[in-house]
Amino acid sequence: MPREVLDSETTDQRLNRLTQALGSGMFVHVRNMLHDMAASDVAFILESSPPRTRQVLWQLIDLDHTGEILDELGEELKDNLIKQMTPERVAKAAAGMDTDDLAYILRSLPDSVFNKVLQSMSSQDRTRVEQALSYPDDTAGSIMNTDTVTLRPDVNIDVILRYLRIRGELPEATDTLYVVDKHDNLLGGVRISDLLTCNPDASVRDIMASDLEGIPVGMNDSEVAQLFERHDWISAPVIGKDNQLLGRITIDDVVDIIREDAEHSMMGMAGMDDDSDTFGPVLKSTLQRSLWLTINLFAALLAASVTNMFEGTLEQFATIAILMTIVPSMGGVAGNQTLALVIRGIALGQIGQSNSRWLIGKELAIGFLNGLLWSVLVFVAVWLWKGDVALGALIGGAMLINMTVAGFAGACIPLLLKKMNIDPALAGGMVLTTVTDVIGLFAFLGLATFFLL
Amino acid sequence: MPREVLDSETTDQRLNRLTQALGSGMFVHVRNMLHDMAASDVAFILESSPPRTRQVLWQLIDLDHTGEILDELGEELKDNLIKQMTPERVAKAAAGMDTDDLAYILRSLPDSVFNKVLQSMSSQDRTRVEQALSYPDDTAGSIMNTDTVTLRPDVNIDVILRYLRIRGELPEATDTLYVVDKHDNLLGGVRISDLLTCNPDASVRDIMASDLEGIPVGMNDSEVAQLFERHDWISAPVIGKDNQLLGRITIDDVVDIIREDAEHSMMGMAGMDDDSDTFGPVLKSTLQRSLWLTINLFAALLAASVTNMFEGTLEQFATIAILMTIVPSMGGVAGNQTLALVIRGIALGQIGQSNSRWLIGKELAIGFLNGLLWSVLVFVAVWLWKGDVALGALIGGAMLINMTVAGFAGACIPLLLKKMNIDPALAGGMVLTTVTDVIGLFAFLGLATFFLL
Repeated sequence: MPREVLDSETTDQRLNRLTQALGSGMFVHVRNMLHDMAASDVAFILESSPPRTRQVLWQLIDLDHTGEILDELGEELKDNLIKQMTPERVAKAAAGMDTDDLAYILRSLPDSVFNKVLQSMSSQDRTRVEQALSYPDDTAGSIMNTDTVTLRPDVNIDVILRYLRIRGELPEATDTLYVVDKHDNLLGGVRISDLLTCNPDASVRDIMASDLEGIPVGMNDSEVAQLFERHDWISAPVIGKDNQLLGRITIDDVVDIIREDAEHSMMGMAGMDDDSDTFGPVLKSTLQRSLWLTINLFAALLAASVTNMFEGTLEQFATIAILMTIVPSMGGVAGNQTLALVIRGIALGQIGQSNSRWLIGKELAIGFLNGLLWSVLVFVAVWLWKGDVALGALIGGAMLINMTVAGFAGACIPLLLKKMNIDPALAGGMVLTTVTDVIGLFAFLGLATFFLL
Repeated sequence: MPREVLDSETTDQRLNRLTQALGSGMFVHVRNMLHDMAASDVAFILESSPPRTRQVLWQLIDLDHTGEILDELGEELKDNLIKQMTPERVAKAAAGMDTDDLAYILRSLPDSVFNKVLQSMSSQDRTRVEQALSYPDDTAGSIMNTDTVTLRPDVNIDVILRYLRIRGELPEATDTLYVVDKHDNLLGGVRISDLLTCNPDASVRDIMASDLEGIPVGMNDSEVAQLFERHDWISAPVIGKDNQLLGRITIDDVVDIIREDAEHSMMGMAGMDDDSDTFGPVLKSTLQRSLWLTINLFAALLAASVTNMFEGTLEQFATIAILMTIVPSMGGVAGNQTLALVIRGIALGQIGQSNSRWLIGKELAIGFLNGLLWSVLVFVAVWLWKGDVALGALIGGAMLINMTVAGFAGACIPLLLKKMNIDPALAGGMVLTTVTDVIGLFAFLGLATFFLL
């Protein structure tokens, strides 16, 4: 009987049980529980545990399973755990890992440990890892596995079926076998479901799809993910310069990239690294967040120095000081709405030369319309509150200026940053908020100084 | 020869070519180009086009292809295009669509059109759609397809192989055939790759995996996506109450959910709907963004009314007004960092009863440490700038208070909102910023009033 699926509640309950067993020192019981779980579930529990619990759990895991479990962990936690392992233990764990994950781990090791780990490996493992290491991070090559099963075009299907029966189990997530010529050049692919349903007297050439798209080994991994998403692929062949088959990429690695890319935008806009470990240690987390806060302190001091230029106005009218945060606040929110939309569009590859001008125009128009709407509302609100028509008109005017700028800047800043090869998800929010703060304060305080003094 | 993959540059070029051809009125040429493209590529081009171009392109697409193309579009654009179609055209397009997508579209139609569309369908289509409509949106049932191929346990593999050959092509993304008893209860699964490699004299029971996990039909679709991600599934069976096999979920639909969930957090935190159409019409977009700006106006007026309480202080010390935005700004950034981390943790199902207290403690500690660090830095900065030790000390003290509150609030607010069944990604940022603004202003202006007056 199929067992009921682990839903999030039972995972939480399981984590509770583990924590309780750990608390009462029942280490043997915990070790047995961990032993019986799937690697992905153990990884999930490690990710969800505070540092001390993690340490104990990690020591209770069988060395044979560490490779599979490391495979499933987030980058920051993975790096931390590996740093604590001896090179011999890393080499042993490596035996249970996929090539691409192993290459990832080796890249992050210090040189001395790296060499020790390589030396402790079997020569077969070493060769496949050295090859994987030759492709730059974030390319199709770095997420590729080399476990492809290839066919020749002129063989009959019944021969293939006999061959597969002798060969035994196929690699994980194999939905297509690739057809190559004698130089290993990709000619096409045969879906394994077609092998089951076709006439066994046909030849590979008869049933192969010859319009199979090969992914260039140097393609950026986010672009690879977009192709998988758009075409609903489960696996795809990776090709080198002369259309030579090098390996294949499978959907499970692509899902990780889709998740990482989307999290990168979200976490980046809040000034966080997407690898951040939710349950990481306090001191480390504090330091990770400092960079962003440092930049923000400069931005805030810049805004304060704009205000400083209008000291005379503020001395005479305290009401101006009371109202001066409203315009930058509204501009910041409106600009961030545009920014989020454009950053998503860039990440999805939707925004290019042909439509970016239209998009900037659209956001400028939205900013202006929003500006009109909110300038009227804030005019009425301030008039009613402070009983001063002039003050209401001033803040309304500043709002119109700042919202229009916010729409324009929210669209232009990420596109400009991208042209300068700066990640818009990381830098966009801070640059934008600085612009909307400075323009908002300048507009309101400047208008106030001009008309009231 | 496999054709080179469409990378994002050539997509942009293709879009350029299409736009040029449209501009010069070469409609027949454009129609032919669209006809030769994959549905997913046409959908991508529609998503990336401004409204007017979209309208023309949509009219040039063959009716036979509209179903497949609608399948691939984002929700907002899909809804818009369908609203313009006659019920008869929708019914015709429906023939080319997956059950789950069709049910989605029907749900969004007005009742009168809905009934017309149902009536224009073949009775077979109608039955499968009515069944799909019986499951609530956002559950496993709503993304399930009913195209499962099932086996009985006591049959020999060679019989199965012969049956499959007669049956012909298998449904998309079929990696596993499900084994059921005579009441359609799920007993296990046979991977189609195992059918190819096993001994044909074995029985289904011999090679089936009996620990196959069935997904309850009512499970939330985000939880389904987490299971797929954690276990690297390509498809999974959906079961009803008595373990009865109802259908299957495939990775392509799961990838869409993963993307949507991650985008939901990112767009939500910026006050945007994740369905927002990047190239949608100006007026509609302006209205969509108003709700968030309205809420923000109230938050900004609340902050201004806090400042208003300290009018006397501001009248005497214009410098206080100049510096008063720094503390809320730093608190907002620090709080948002915590918020992003916690929202991601909630979305991944990592945060539960067993660890939320630890997490709040950790973020409180980080907030306090950050507060110490930045209170010293801002103390020095303000002392040097304004040459006033007391003023530096005041702003430093306010900073310590506000950063500590920001860490605590950034962790508690999303957890509380979740308990109250309010989406933390949507409401969290606004509630948090209001808290850090109010506390930051209150702390700084309060301390200044107490010590300076």
